[in-house]
Amino acid sequence: MTAAQYVGNKSFEVGPGRSVAPDAGEVRLDVGYVGICGTDMHIYHGVMDQRVGPPQVIGHEMSGVIAELGDGVEGFSVGDRVVVRPLDYCGDCPACEAGHSHICHNLKFMGIDSPGALQSSWTVKARTLHKLPDNVTMEQGALIEPLSVACHDVTRSRLAAGEKAVVLGGGPIGQLIAQVAKGIGAEVLISEVADVRREFAEKSGVRTINPAEQDVKAVVDEWTGGKGADVVFEVTGVVPAVETMTDIASVRGRICMVAIHSAAPPVNLFQFFWKELEMVGARVYEAADFEQAIRMVADGDIDLAPFITSVNSIQDIATAFSSMDGNPAGMKALIECGGVQNA
Amino acid sequence: MTAAQYVGNKSFEVGPGRSVAPDAGEVRLDVGYVGICGTDMHIYHGVMDQRVGPPQVIGHEMSGVIAELGDGVEGFSVGDRVVVRPLDYCGDCPACEAGHSHICHNLKFMGIDSPGALQSSWTVKARTLHKLPDNVTMEQGALIEPLSVACHDVTRSRLAAGEKAVVLGGGPIGQLIAQVAKGIGAEVLISEVADVRREFAEKSGVRTINPAEQDVKAVVDEWTGGKGADVVFEVTGVVPAVETMTDIASVRGRICMVAIHSAAPPVNLFQFFWKELEMVGARVYEAADFEQAIRMVADGDIDLAPFITSVNSIQDIATAFSSMDGNPAGMKALIECGGVQNA
Repeated sequence: MTAAQYVGNKSFEVGPGRSVAPDAGEVRLDVGYVGICGTDMHIYHGVMDQRVGPPQVIGHEMSGVIAELGDGVEGFSVGDRVVVRPLDYCGDCPACEAGHSHICHNLKFMGIDSPGALQSSWTVKARTLHKLPDNVTMEQGALIEPLSVACHDVTRSRLAAGEKAVVLGGGPIGQLIAQVAKGIGAEVLISEVADVRREFAEKSGVRTINPAEQDVKAVVDEWTGGKGADVVFEVTGVVPAVETMTDIASVRGRICMVAIHSAAPPVNLFQFFWKELEMVGARVYEAADFEQAIRMVADGDIDLAPFITSVNSIQDIATAFSSMDGNPAGMKALIECGGVQNA
Repeated sequence: MTAAQYVGNKSFEVGPGRSVAPDAGEVRLDVGYVGICGTDMHIYHGVMDQRVGPPQVIGHEMSGVIAELGDGVEGFSVGDRVVVRPLDYCGDCPACEAGHSHICHNLKFMGIDSPGALQSSWTVKARTLHKLPDNVTMEQGALIEPLSVACHDVTRSRLAAGEKAVVLGGGPIGQLIAQVAKGIGAEVLISEVADVRREFAEKSGVRTINPAEQDVKAVVDEWTGGKGADVVFEVTGVVPAVETMTDIASVRGRICMVAIHSAAPPVNLFQFFWKELEMVGARVYEAADFEQAIRMVADGDIDLAPFITSVNSIQDIATAFSSMDGNPAGMKALIECGGVQNA
C-alpha cells in the first residue's frame, strides 16, 4: 500500500503506508482517484499546518471500491464502487440536534483534521459512503465531492427553473455551480476576470462577462429587463464582488455566500433593506447533495470531462500540485492512487 | 378643515387646509389620529427636504373614518373606521409583476412623496384601506402602521413559536417586534443601551440586556445552551450591532435587517459561510401584515397602550415633535387631527 504524506513546505513524501483494518461501523476502501481542491492548495502552501499537523495524508475528493467491511456495516458489500462524504460530526451539539450535522459545532473534516484519501487504502466510517452507479466512472467519481458543493449551493439559493443567476467567480466551484444551475433549467452568467476561465465557461455553454472591462450591473439589467438577477452566487472572496452582489440582485433576490471572506468587507446593508434582499451562507454539503450530484452525472445532465485538467499517478503528486499552483486554467487535477485495478 | 404643513427647519404651519374630493377609486377620510415616526423626525430635521418638498402635509401612521366615496369604490361605506397602508405602487415594474408591489421600483410613500395624514381630511386610493373592528380604538388604529412593520419583520424572519429571538435596538419598532414575537409564542431578548427603553421592555415582559455593560454573546450562549439565537433582528443601524448579529446567531440562524444602514459597515461574511447564516431585508409591509396587526390588537394579543407616550391636538404639533426629539423615553406621539368626533 502506497501513501502520499504532506510533510510541509509544498512537499510530499510518497512511500509505503499503513493499511488500517476497519473497526465496527467502518470500511476499508481501495482508493481509485483523488482530486486536488483549493483547500488542498492552501494546505500545500503551509497556511494550514497548525490544523493539519504534517506529516499527514490529506485529500478528500475521491472515488474507490470497498475492500473490507468492519463489524455491523449494513447495506454495503466488498466490491461496491463508492465515494466518501468526508464529514465527521459529533451528533450531540445543537447543530447536529437541529439536523445540521454537516456544520456540526465540532465538525472534523476528513483529509484535513484526520487522515485523508491520498493513499491506495483508506479506512472510513460507513456512514460517509455513497454508492456510484455502474455508468459513473472512477474519474467522474472523484469529482462528485466538488459537484456536491455546487449542488448544495444551488439548493441553498432556492434557484428554480426559468430564473436567472449570476455566478461571481469562474473557478472550479463557480463553473460547477453554473453547470448545476443550467442542469436544473436556470439561465446563468459567469462574471470572471481570467480569459481562460471565461473561455472554459463559454465552451460549456455558459454566457460570461469580464468585470474588469464591462459594467456588470448594466449587463445584468439588460439581460433581465431591468429586474436584476434572481440569484447571485458570490464565489470570489474579493471585496469588489461584495459590492457587485448587492447591486445586481433583483428585488427579493437571493445571494448565496459560497466564498470564504477571511476579512469582514463592507456590505451594502441598505440594499438588503431597500430591495428586501436575502443572503444565505452555504458550506460543504449534505447527504442529499451527494445523491443529487451522483444522479446528475449518471443521467448525463452534467459533463465532467472538461473539468479534468490532468491525471497523474500518486508517484507524480508533486507535479500535480505544482502544475495547479496559481494556474487559472487548472480546474481539477486527479491523482491515481493505485488502489483500484483499471480504475 | 385643518392641515399642518411642514414648512422646513423643524417648523409647521397649522391652518385651514384644502379638502380634496375623491376621484374614481378614491375615498376621502376624516382623520382621527396620526402617529409620529422616525421618518417624520428625519423630515422635521430637514434632511429629507429635497424629497418631501416643503411646504407639505406629512404623516402616514393614521386612523380615520370614511367621509366620502369616489366612483367605483366597492367594499367600503361612508362611516367605516379604517387605517391606510400608505404605499402607492406603479403595478408595472418587475417588482410589482413579481408580486412585491410593497417594494415597487417606483414606490411613492404617501406622506413623504405625496401629501400625508396630518390634516383633518385626507383623500387616498381605496386600495390602501384596511377596516378596523369595533373594538379597536382610533388611538390604537394610529399604531397599526408601525405594528404592521413589526409583523412584516417577524414574518420575513420566519420566527416560529418556541424559537429564541434577540432584538438589537429597543426603539418603537424594536419593542413592537418583541411584542409580535412574544405574541406568536417565541422567546425574546432586547439588547438596548438606553435604561429607559430597557425598563419599558421589562415592564412589557421582555428580558433585556445592556450591550454597553454586558457581553451579549455570553448572555445569548447561556440563554440558548450554546446554540445561539434562532433569529436576530438588527434594528439599531449602528456598526457594533452588525458585529453582534453574526456572533450571536445560531448555526442556520436568520438575521432580519430592519435598520437603515446608510454607510456600508463591515460584515463578518465568514460567519455566513461557516454557520450557514441567512439574512433577509425587511422594508415596510404588505396587506397581510396590516391584517395581522389589526387581528392581534383586536384579539388582545398585544397591548398598545404603553406605546402611546403623548396625545396632542394638531394645533400643538410643534410640542409633539419637540418633545419626541432625541428623547429615548418617547415611543409614540399621537396627533389628534380633529376629523373624527369623539375619536
